[in-house]
Amino acid sequence: MPALKPVTPIDQGFLWLERRNQPMHVGGLLLLRPPADAGDDYIPALIERTRRATRAYPPFNQRLVRRLGAWFWTEDRAFDVEAHFRPLALPRPGRIRELLTLVSQLHANLLDRAKPLWELYLIDGVEDGRIAVYAKIHHAMVDGVAAMRLLQRAMTTEAGDTELTPLWAIPPRRRQRGGRNPALRLGQVAGAQLASLPRVSMELSRTVQSAWQRDPDFVSAFQAPRCILNQRVSASRRFAAQSWSLDRIRAAGRQLGGTLNDAVLAMCSAALRRYLQSLDALPDKPLIAMVPMSLRQDDSEGGNQVALFLANLATHLDDPRSRFDTIARSVRHSKARYATMSQTEIMNYVATVMAVGGLNLATGLMPGRQPFNVVISNVPGPKQPLYFNGARLEGMYPVSIVLDGQALNITLNSYDHKLEFGLIACSRTLPSMQRLLDDLEQGLVELEALAGSGGADGRS
Amino acid sequence: MPALKPVTPIDQGFLWLERRNQPMHVGGLLLLRPPADAGDDYIPALIERTRRATRAYPPFNQRLVRRLGAWFWTEDRAFDVEAHFRPLALPRPGRIRELLTLVSQLHANLLDRAKPLWELYLIDGVEDGRIAVYAKIHHAMVDGVAAMRLLQRAMTTEAGDTELTPLWAIPPRRRQRGGRNPALRLGQVAGAQLASLPRVSMELSRTVQSAWQRDPDFVSAFQAPRCILNQRVSASRRFAAQSWSLDRIRAAGRQLGGTLNDAVLAMCSAALRRYLQSLDALPDKPLIAMVPMSLRQDDSEGGNQVALFLANLATHLDDPRSRFDTIARSVRHSKARYATMSQTEIMNYVATVMAVGGLNLATGLMPGRQPFNVVISNVPGPKQPLYFNGARLEGMYPVSIVLDGQALNITLNSYDHKLEFGLIACSRTLPSMQRLLDDLEQGLVELEALAGSGGADGRS
Repeated sequence: MPALKPVTPIDQGFLWLERRNQPMHVGGLLLLRPPADAGDDYIPALIERTRRATRAYPPFNQRLVRRLGAWFWTEDRAFDVEAHFRPLALPRPGRIRELLTLVSQLHANLLDRAKPLWELYLIDGVEDGRIAVYAKIHHAMVDGVAAMRLLQRAMTTEAGDTELTPLWAIPPRRRQRGGRNPALRLGQVAGAQLASLPRVSMELSRTVQSAWQRDPDFVSAFQAPRCILNQRVSASRRFAAQSWSLDRIRAAGRQLGGTLNDAVLAMCSAALRRYLQSLDALPDKPLIAMVPMSLRQDDSEGGNQVALFLANLATHLDDPRSRFDTIARSVRHSKARYATMSQTEIMNYVATVMAVGGLNLATGLMPGRQPFNVVISNVPGPKQPLYFNGARLEGMYPVSIVLDGQALNITLNSYDHKLEFGLIACSRTLPSMQRLLDDLEQGLVELEALAGSGGADGRS
Repeated sequence: MPALKPVTPIDQGFLWLERRNQPMHVGGLLLLRPPADAGDDYIPALIERTRRATRAYPPFNQRLVRRLGAWFWTEDRAFDVEAHFRPLALPRPGRIRELLTLVSQLHANLLDRAKPLWELYLIDGVEDGRIAVYAKIHHAMVDGVAAMRLLQRAMTTEAGDTELTPLWAIPPRRRQRGGRNPALRLGQVAGAQLASLPRVSMELSRTVQSAWQRDPDFVSAFQAPRCILNQRVSASRRFAAQSWSLDRIRAAGRQLGGTLNDAVLAMCSAALRRYLQSLDALPDKPLIAMVPMSLRQDDSEGGNQVALFLANLATHLDDPRSRFDTIARSVRHSKARYATMSQTEIMNYVATVMAVGGLNLATGLMPGRQPFNVVISNVPGPKQPLYFNGARLEGMYPVSIVLDGQALNITLNSYDHKLEFGLIACSRTLPSMQRLLDDLEQGLVELEALAGSGGADGRS
């Protein structure tokens, strides 16, 4: 019998929170363009080579076992790469909407707890000669930020490196030394989560309470209204994703006297307002967003200090200018209250679901009484173009978690001069995420009109 | 609010039995060859046309709701065909083993209880220009036999009919009248299940008891030994399928003085013996199979009288001749004891899982104490070639259920002069179903050698 390693109490929480309608894994979708000289054999050869990586290293070879009512990690002595690496294809014509439908379906399926809790799908046949990778990993193994970083580590900045070792097959020592495609130090992250989550939950409770107590003007802003976003969820998901030019959003924010983040929130606010209006379900009071966000200057390198805001989305206001100003003021107001945090706390703060789950775990709040209506999470991503076995990464979209009471999650990450939005929702509760994407674009166009910058199309 | 229809106690049982490692749906895999003149547009056009069938009729539009702790069926007013009809493709080269891996993975996923409990996958890109259909439907909606009949009703005997209405979009009245692709009368079946299951369970208990009490010689045969087949199962599945010539198996059975069914059981016995030996896990005592089987003469038309046997597979015997004779004697011995049953009871008897589930429900037998080691189920299928929108049905394989305590299920159906075997197992508990297929062929070759008919290769 291999050694047993206890699952941390926090991660036990993620296992405990999981239900058939509420899988607790995070995912990412990569859209890739094979090299121009790729022959017919490029994909079959890539698949065959990847299949030969039959040996997995920690944490990819760790599975759960249950002893005396608690979960432990142990090595999977029967690791079977075919259960984890899953080649697929879209039928012709392989449109993006069909890729998104497939990802929605794959994301809705539970992972098998008898095996290491991750799967990686290589998807051939995306229109226009492209391929995609969809990966999922359980939140009890890594949080959302770490998962996106892992996906990055599965790639390289070298276009010419067409024979990358699959992530699971790289010995941890080589990953830690920063080898060819080095991964995050997962052991360290997992250990640190344990130490920091109680503080995160406490901080979040305090945030809500202090807003209520000390700022009478903001009381209404911190009482999230009832909304269709905050229903119980089905087991089905709808995922939509799109890239926007980072420059375009940043320019709009600056010209309106705010930040990139203010502009992102204003886009989301306009989109949610329009979307909920079309469903005749816009609350009279403003929606409240829970926003894990970087505190660093938008253009600075390094430093990952993050705070967790509750932002007033001002969705009750018709005038876009008033909406933008209210959002920007709400964010500035919040920022003043938050202390910066350690690297470790950042990992937890930015992890959308950990915060939501942690809050529910810590306070016993029922889904019917949500302290916020929607999570809008912005994850820093790679600035330079990445390559996956010679295929250029065109887009990289987070696929997050929805929960009972949180039927929509908006997560975005930056990549190569773009902001990549991933919307995930319960498909039964919330129709057409595609429409919400269009509404996001409308929201940006509205901001650009306000800013006098016109509607130059930077959408890609 | 649409009307509520109570879920029968039996079907509540299937919902109650379902766990994340034990999904309670049955499935079927169709292997199809498009018409020779099919253009590049054949699959895309078929997909588009099928997607336009956005309206579903009962039972395909019925979803579950829970009221006061019990389940009810109600119309899904938000029926979304995209959640149920799911086009996919295999990446090149699209080998059969990759199709089987995909089906294993699809079969392992739970259905969303917020939606009608069925999914149909059209799978393009099977090697050699073929396509496949994999369909799954919850056992609370129909049993395994009815599910296979439904799949038949999705097809036609007319090669030229390339625009079939998808099954879910055919009004029930037309299905009942025997329209172009008529389906089973599901409402009637569901109602009848309620009436007949208690009798089925009682009958099965009596079978076991009478064998123990009245036939001292058979006591050992009806005490299933402990075996690796009877472990708790993971959520992962391994599916394997293959066709054998009906004539070939029938000839071997006859020449050895037995029936087609005897020969099938002897093939399974030889295969299980070899398979378990290779794992050093063959019990000293003979394996016991639970065999729902037609009682009619092999060649007769009509009449669906079925009994449920516990058969001694004689896996402890090294000599193939002794093994065949013991199996044949065990089956004859059993047949003498069973009364024939009504059409309705047949539906339940043949339904492998219903019997297993019903037995567990009725007797409270724990998985650790199984009255049999494996289910071997033979479902009568269509005798004439069928077509699906012009594509010829080459093979039609049942994908059944495994349960805690029953980690392997062997179900076969006849089709067009063939017997189509579908093996489904927990992939964690039981390695390589492909090897078990090879062992089945070996078992048949052994019978043929005994029968002096040589090893003519009728395998396809």
